[in-house]
Amino acid sequence: MLQPILNAPRLSASCCEAMCQIEITDELGAHRAVLIPAERALTVFIDGRELVTLMTLGASPELLVLGFLCNQRLIEFAGAIEAISVDWNLAAAHVTSRRPAHRVASDPQRIVAGGSGQGSIYARMLAHVNAVKLPRIDEARIRASTLRQLLDTMRQQEGIYRRARSVHSCALFQGETLLVSVEDVSRHNALDTISGWMALHGICGGDKILFTTGRLTGEMVIKAAQSGVPIVVSRNGVSSMGIEVAEKLGMSLFGRAVGRRFQCFVGCQRLALDD
Amino acid sequence: MLQPILNAPRLSASCCEAMCQIEITDELGAHRAVLIPAERALTVFIDGRELVTLMTLGASPELLVLGFLCNQRLIEFAGAIEAISVDWNLAAAHVTSRRPAHRVASDPQRIVAGGSGQGSIYARMLAHVNAVKLPRIDEARIRASTLRQLLDTMRQQEGIYRRARSVHSCALFQGETLLVSVEDVSRHNALDTISGWMALHGICGGDKILFTTGRLTGEMVIKAAQSGVPIVVSRNGVSSMGIEVAEKLGMSLFGRAVGRRFQCFVGCQRLALDD
Repeated sequence: MLQPILNAPRLSASCCEAMCQIEITDELGAHRAVLIPAERALTVFIDGRELVTLMTLGASPELLVLGFLCNQRLIEFAGAIEAISVDWNLAAAHVTSRRPAHRVASDPQRIVAGGSGQGSIYARMLAHVNAVKLPRIDEARIRASTLRQLLDTMRQQEGIYRRARSVHSCALFQGETLLVSVEDVSRHNALDTISGWMALHGICGGDKILFTTGRLTGEMVIKAAQSGVPIVVSRNGVSSMGIEVAEKLGMSLFGRAVGRRFQCFVGCQRLALDD
Repeated sequence: MLQPILNAPRLSASCCEAMCQIEITDELGAHRAVLIPAERALTVFIDGRELVTLMTLGASPELLVLGFLCNQRLIEFAGAIEAISVDWNLAAAHVTSRRPAHRVASDPQRIVAGGSGQGSIYARMLAHVNAVKLPRIDEARIRASTLRQLLDTMRQQEGIYRRARSVHSCALFQGETLLVSVEDVSRHNALDTISGWMALHGICGGDKILFTTGRLTGEMVIKAAQSGVPIVVSRNGVSSMGIEVAEKLGMSLFGRAVGRRFQCFVGCQRLALDD
């Protein structure tokens, strides 16, 4: 079993029910029960100070918070945190930092949180991302057959999406092997949770492939790069800023990937077509 | 032609190209050109002070900023702003508030921006939303035939989505009449832009219907309520928090609305089925 890093933060284990049932009325006036994803507000406090409120399914709230702190560049590594304790009765995640050496940044100017196109600290993330070193092209490639196998694997996942829709999923692969997958209300949360998992276990991204159901916007691509992953596959499309960041860092982005088909948006040197 | 309110903010008109072309490589190794949505960082300054960076297509950046300020409860009404001037060379939107009477809130605790499940000021929005008064059920209903006509109208829109995918759209209807529609990278931006348009023109939401391609999460429903709109239609699904807010305020949420079919998730008293 995978072990956390030395000096890893202590995490509570406060996952909760990801779906609930409602009764809908359809266009003919008929009633029936459907499942929908749960959505909960989780306010993050660092050393007693309010940082941000995340809206989440609550499947892995501690890893979400850890990944959020990493991806927003509020901490440099998981060891900067002593503990993350989530209490759903208070809708709060209490983060304790290891002081004084690794005190978590708490400049209010930095506490502007990221999201799907809103409220980003994009400029600061971009500044950092320039320092990211990803593996050279010949060190990290993907075969078209691997990409298809990965899509097959994700299609077979018995997830929340299948039953309740309206969630995004994100997964980390090593070759054709699924290492971890997560679903959440937003594509950002799902990716942050994967980043949190990687940080907790000290997993390097260089030989990994990231899968997401979400669009490859600038921030999504930056987050993948920050976790060191050079290859990202999406079921969805890409924005110009996603392309821009990937080009700058020598990443490969694949999208519109459904069934046997896919498009390589940028960095197709990392793609090995089947014979 | 629709006039802005008295004392409306002066707005620049800095829209820009919403799509760009890239060359992709498909699964067979063939190259071809596809369109993708542009995505730009726009940093908002209020009276010279940095507030937030929004990622946007840039179709209506001034209305986006105005709606963002309204929906984040940073201003009470459009007249609190004297001017919004967007300069794409600097990737900046400069907002000038009318002082001293209507000084825009600039408490750093409030400058935590909303997004798709991340970085929300949900608690504060929720506190405000309790004061929202929406029309009674008998004052604002929707016929199933109107709902279908609305879906038809949206399907026929020649938008960015049709050509480049990967954007969300949002539109405001009065009965079957489309008043305004907008597309942006995130569903939040699209809805904020509609809110900005309503605030600029002093449009009340009580007799309107809001359409979105995005999921009806808690924040989306709160934003609709803040604009006074009691009926929201989505092509997509709903979260438990979306239901919770709508129930509290007596709103009606429709979703999974494609073609002739739809589901009423909550508030079906506002629905008049066809004979």
